Amino acid sequence: MSTQPRIIEVRQNILKRNDELAKELRLRFQEAGVFVVSLVSSPGSGKTAFLEKTLTLLKERQYRPAALVGDLATDNDAVRLARSQTPVKQITTGTLCHLEAAMIQTALEDWNLEDLDFLFIENVGNLVCPSSYDLGENLRLVLLSVTEGEDKPLKYPTIFNSSDVAVVTKVDLADAVEFDWKAAETNIQAVRPGMPILRVSAKTGQGMDEWLASLPSGRRHSLEPE
Amino acid sequence: MSTQPRIIEVRQNILKRNDELAKELRLRFQEAGVFVVSLVSSPGSGKTAFLEKTLTLLKERQYRPAALVGDLATDNDAVRLARSQTPVKQITTGTLCHLEAAMIQTALEDWNLEDLDFLFIENVGNLVCPSSYDLGENLRLVLLSVTEGEDKPLKYPTIFNSSDVAVVTKVDLADAVEFDWKAAETNIQAVRPGMPILRVSAKTGQGMDEWLASLPSGRRHSLEPE
Repeated sequence: MSTQPRIIEVRQNILKRNDELAKELRLRFQEAGVFVVSLVSSPGSGKTAFLEKTLTLLKERQYRPAALVGDLATDNDAVRLARSQTPVKQITTGTLCHLEAAMIQTALEDWNLEDLDFLFIENVGNLVCPSSYDLGENLRLVLLSVTEGEDKPLKYPTIFNSSDVAVVTKVDLADAVEFDWKAAETNIQAVRPGMPILRVSAKTGQGMDEWLASLPSGRRHSLEPE
Repeated sequence: MSTQPRIIEVRQNILKRNDELAKELRLRFQEAGVFVVSLVSSPGSGKTAFLEKTLTLLKERQYRPAALVGDLATDNDAVRLARSQTPVKQITTGTLCHLEAAMIQTALEDWNLEDLDFLFIENVGNLVCPSSYDLGENLRLVLLSVTEGEDKPLKYPTIFNSSDVAVVTKVDLADAVEFDWKAAETNIQAVRPGMPILRVSAKTGQGMDEWLASLPSGRRHSLEPE
């Protein structure tokens, strides 16, 4: 198709601009001492439930977390996350299936980063589009629910490969769906050898302590966890 | 961003070309008497399990079904579907998050459509990208598993709006996840009023007879179900 090279060129320009903005954001986050975690997964993997639990627990432990949440069309997730009584802002992307660094920059305009310890960025539910867009985060989590099947890492390798930690969610349902832990781990390690894997249930709280313990604990975090 | 109008122009050209190809495909399907059903959903909604069950049951009932299945990187789904002992072909899309009419055309090159009663096309697992691409199908199903949550129609309205039937899958897990049927139905009807909703479990077979009964039953199907 003769239009293909033009698309690729335009896409490369967009990605380059995004990378530059993400770099600026990362520097701002570092200077403000805020540790930034982004979450990617397919729709319905439990990103919002996991994030609500995370925000609530961090607040209880006297940290100052906040969240940005991306979605095509609704602010349902922001409404849910607001129950954690932490600052939450919805980013509506329209027909765009991922967040970009420029959207993060705009959303943060009226927030003072110095007031935050952690910023969580929940991407649009999608296992393809978000993988190429750096948002300036320190850590990218890819979530995989036990109800989705063990084969997802092989079928969507780029999103797993561009993430730092795999979080297996809804583990309370693992027996009901006969989840094959060995297959899931083998598939994750095949795509990204050495990737840490967390097992959590936002419903029962299982694994949440281990997850929070893996975050840097001091105020004024450096870019590298202490 | 100054690049935006160029992208939109290129995208519109691609969509126009796709629509023309899809129209040609639809005519070929009609002339060959094959009824074509496409399936869209997020990753892990159970498209492949539902399709394997459908292919197996249709074959048992003396129909001649076949399937094309789209995925980014693996042929896992084709391997699973081949267990139904019906013709199955994998389309690997690379980094593209949807199927296009041209891919269907190429995949069908060495198949004789006259030998088929039904053709099923399983799209890449994605609730955004596939919505704009006509594949020449007679019927588009959007699948939603009870484990994904009831809010998906509101969050991904375009894919629900561009589909003909909603299929709620994994209903055997509905109680375990406290699925709210009323909320799900309200959300589906809000996005696409009057949309038929099927409830199925590929695991237990629940709802499969009703689904198969909704397909046109005669050989040499016309474009409109008899």
